[in-house]
Amino acid sequence: MCAVPKTDSQSGMTPITSPQNPVIKQLRSLVDKKARREHGLFLAEGLAMLERAAELGWSPGVLVATKPVSIWDDVRPLVVSEKLMATLSGQNNPQDVIAAFKPRFQPHPTKTGVWLVLEEIRDPGNLGTIIRTAEAAGVEGIILAGECCDPWGPDCVRASTGSIFAVPLVRMTREALISFMGAFPGETVGTAMVAKTDFRRPYGAPLMLVLGSESRGLSQDISKACKTLVRIPMKPGVESLNLAIATALILYQTVST
Amino acid sequence: MCAVPKTDSQSGMTPITSPQNPVIKQLRSLVDKKARREHGLFLAEGLAMLERAAELGWSPGVLVATKPVSIWDDVRPLVVSEKLMATLSGQNNPQDVIAAFKPRFQPHPTKTGVWLVLEEIRDPGNLGTIIRTAEAAGVEGIILAGECCDPWGPDCVRASTGSIFAVPLVRMTREALISFMGAFPGETVGTAMVAKTDFRRPYGAPLMLVLGSESRGLSQDISKACKTLVRIPMKPGVESLNLAIATALILYQTVST
Repeated sequence: MCAVPKTDSQSGMTPITSPQNPVIKQLRSLVDKKARREHGLFLAEGLAMLERAAELGWSPGVLVATKPVSIWDDVRPLVVSEKLMATLSGQNNPQDVIAAFKPRFQPHPTKTGVWLVLEEIRDPGNLGTIIRTAEAAGVEGIILAGECCDPWGPDCVRASTGSIFAVPLVRMTREALISFMGAFPGETVGTAMVAKTDFRRPYGAPLMLVLGSESRGLSQDISKACKTLVRIPMKPGVESLNLAIATALILYQTVST
Repeated sequence: MCAVPKTDSQSGMTPITSPQNPVIKQLRSLVDKKARREHGLFLAEGLAMLERAAELGWSPGVLVATKPVSIWDDVRPLVVSEKLMATLSGQNNPQDVIAAFKPRFQPHPTKTGVWLVLEEIRDPGNLGTIIRTAEAAGVEGIILAGECCDPWGPDCVRASTGSIFAVPLVRMTREALISFMGAFPGETVGTAMVAKTDFRRPYGAPLMLVLGSESRGLSQDISKACKTLVRIPMKPGVESLNLAIATALILYQTVST
């Protein structure tokens, strides 16, 4: 057991070095989904990512850094040793700063703009990349339908490169989604290998773009709830595209020139 | 130290269990780039991936499986215990079969079709995803220019989902690329944040599509060697797209409807 320094570490004078520090222990637990739910917190690391969060109006519950930083006027960092920081970071080259935030879900989608729907997406890296692309394409928000991976896990947050703080996320059961799609005032477009319509066509807004899981694609129920089904052409012999790639190709059809 | 069974393991009767078996030790070393170069071998795992390799005319130097498999008529697997297989696999759910192949580079690009050029790509997962997308989009091949990550590493091979066996890869120095671009009979298109032309426009063949590294984009020299520069529009405030996403968006502009 390491001794906990007696000085006020929040002053930034003496860095915390003990892995037994209760704040550090709590933060380290947040790689685990259960702990994230229990504590109502998720981690984001790196100066660029945290500056993005601040810009977008997010404020952390805890801020930990290896040296004094001033991203938020009213949030003083807990200063820790580089060695201790390395135990918090999920990256090979640990960042200088890491923070814990409260996850935010938007309660309902709107009936305006472009909504991206992901049914049962399972890969957090894919989800983070999709959130990044969705922000660039200017979507209104993303609906996570059914049993999806946790968007607040470290792999998703990292792959989103900060877009997780910008793009509204809504969780829905598959049943609630189908009912919302039925009442949606615009086109609802799903993807299917067997569809006859090429995805490269004009789309208006409001619009819902609906993609299925990495392994199984869209479920039959949700596929049926789509007004239009489109396909992405592929060279014969090729089975599928990565989900983040397929999503990007379709999303960018909605970006006006 | 475990005892090495004395029976003929290649018969599939008694699975090898010893991590000290020299073939197993060699295969395990192949996660490392130096060892791949030294042995002239790379690993690919999973039945679907290996069936794809067989279909495309690749034959492994070594084939290891937890039970008898018949992917190649003339290659008998070395049968190993599931526990030993788990030490070879880079995946959480180890596959039943893994094989080592000789890497293949094509010596020169052709002057026909669509060639994708990647300058100093560093992320093997991105590269694998790009190879997968490039196959789906029907490219002629991919040129890896300058100091790129190793396409034969486990992360790239896995992300390619077998397309690594289908898409010709050519290595070039940046100097050789610039000279090849100068003599290329078709359009050479690069990406740049500052370009005025939207990437969504028709492209003919032969064509070279040139993308830069994840962190720095295209170098000035190669950017200058491009006849056309295009940009992918993004919502204000968003800095960039993931390289595999940007590549897919541009590649799919060349796929005819």
